[in-house]
Amino acid sequence: MPCTLYIGGMKSGKSELAEKDALSLPAPRLYIATSVPIDEEMKRRVVLHQQRRIGLFETFEEPVNLDRVVLAETDKYNVTLIDCLTFWYNNLFYYFEDKKKRIEVLEEFVDALKHINKQIIIVTNEVGMGIIPDNKLAREFIDFSGWANQKICSVCNKAFFVVSGKKITLE
Amino acid sequence: MPCTLYIGGMKSGKSELAEKDALSLPAPRLYIATSVPIDEEMKRRVVLHQQRRIGLFETFEEPVNLDRVVLAETDKYNVTLIDCLTFWYNNLFYYFEDKKKRIEVLEEFVDALKHINKQIIIVTNEVGMGIIPDNKLAREFIDFSGWANQKICSVCNKAFFVVSGKKITLE
Amino acid sequence: MPCTLYIGGMKSGKSELAEKDALSLPAPRLYIATSVPIDEEMKRRVVLHQQRRIGLFETFEEPVNLDRVVLAETDKYNVTLIDCLTFWYNNLFYYFEDKKKRIEVLEEFVDALKHINKQIIIVTNEVGMGIIPDNKLAREFIDFSGWANQKICSVCNKAFFVVSGKKITLE
Repeated sequence: MPCTLYIGGMKSGKSELAEKDALSLPAPRLYIATSVPIDEEMKRRVVLHQQRRIGLFETFEEPVNLDRVVLAETDKYNVTLIDCLTFWYNNLFYYFEDKKKRIEVLEEFVDALKHINKQIIIVTNEVGMGIIPDNKLAREFIDFSGWANQKICSVCNKAFFVVSGKKITLE
Repeated sequence: MPCTLYIGGMKSGKSELAEKDALSLPAPRLYIATSVPIDEEMKRRVVLHQQRRIGLFETFEEPVNLDRVVLAETDKYNVTLIDCLTFWYNNLFYYFEDKKKRIEVLEEFVDALKHINKQIIIVTNEVGMGIIPDNKLAREFIDFSGWANQKICSVCNKAFFVVSGKKITLE
Repeated sequence: MPCTLYIGGMKSGKSELAEKDALSLPAPRLYIATSVPIDEEMKRRVVLHQQRRIGLFETFEEPVNLDRVVLAETDKYNVTLIDCLTFWYNNLFYYFEDKKKRIEVLEEFVDALKHINKQIIIVTNEVGMGIIPDNKLAREFIDFSGWANQKICSVCNKAFFVVSGKKITLE
């Protein structure tokens, strides 16, 4: 499982470190975009990220079934970057009201990661270190994110916690 | 002070790591439950945790005076697990409007920890790494939690920060 | 660049560790206060911090142009403590509606840090590890804080992430 996880807060520098890591491997490189921008602010953020990748990565868009992309596409590339899972978790909440379905899709992704041969670099957000929110959906999202991050981290052979642009190795 | 602290965000995997740590010691083992479930969601969370402990831990319920339980009960067990202090901090806010009283109860607990002979494993939440909340009570709770976690951490001989199911040693 | 950064959550113990660090160097010592207390609660927090510093630090108040203070004042002291940048970031949001202006002021500060000869110790908050807030301004503040912390961290020769009164070295 040649899989690396970068986990950190918002604007912690995790995307930049993950991208640098991916660029240290030779092309061809794949970028899997999971975000479905739903407003102007999000569109701006996505465009900013895209501009940074031009000529460096091929892009494949998949909002839900990451397992299929991992199994069908990543073998053709030296390295695949998935940034970031939090958008994907959002999509799972958006598309599936049923909690079990979200868990199922997540577990299929984790299973897919166990069968890869080429390097995959995954970026995700730590969202559970603030105060417990009043909002029930927010709590469910934090629970799902934390659980999913643990599951994915457990099949990665390298994992880093990112603070202020610096890496702390998770062993 | 054979005391170990696991501190992490929501769903960081801190409870599972602390439990695994406690189970590495032989029975009898004590679990101190501090939570007073006030709604259905909380009841479900508590039941889930209880099911995992059946046959492995004896359970003692104490919502406020943890110092007394620590002094009177823990010596009879090879290891005591307290999971998690954040529920207890919540209780202190619920039962005591007077800030000084909360501090007093906390300091009594810290004092009790200095006099234990058997292993105690404590789980607590990091809640102060999000944005400063608008809500005054939330800010007070974060302040109290952070201060209390520091106090308790200072009398533990081992402490771990948990991220995504992985431990970072705090020295 | 003899510059040290302490980054941590609210009530993580970062201020106390930074102060201890500063006090390990001989007087004269400078404290740069950036906060403009806008309510009673904030005033109380500021007063508490001031009391701890009496006789140990000289104080210089500057809510915006930290670069000028760094360039004009720090050379006269063996060590300068800036605690904490989050208040300063708040001021930049308060005084400058224009995002570009905030970035400019921040970059001037980072430039100033590159030209210092005496030790500077900086304290800042990690605010991006909770759930993404609904509030647009809150998101902008998190983005700015995270970006600014990274910029500043990149010109520090020592940086520590503080959890529960303990330091984790950022390398």
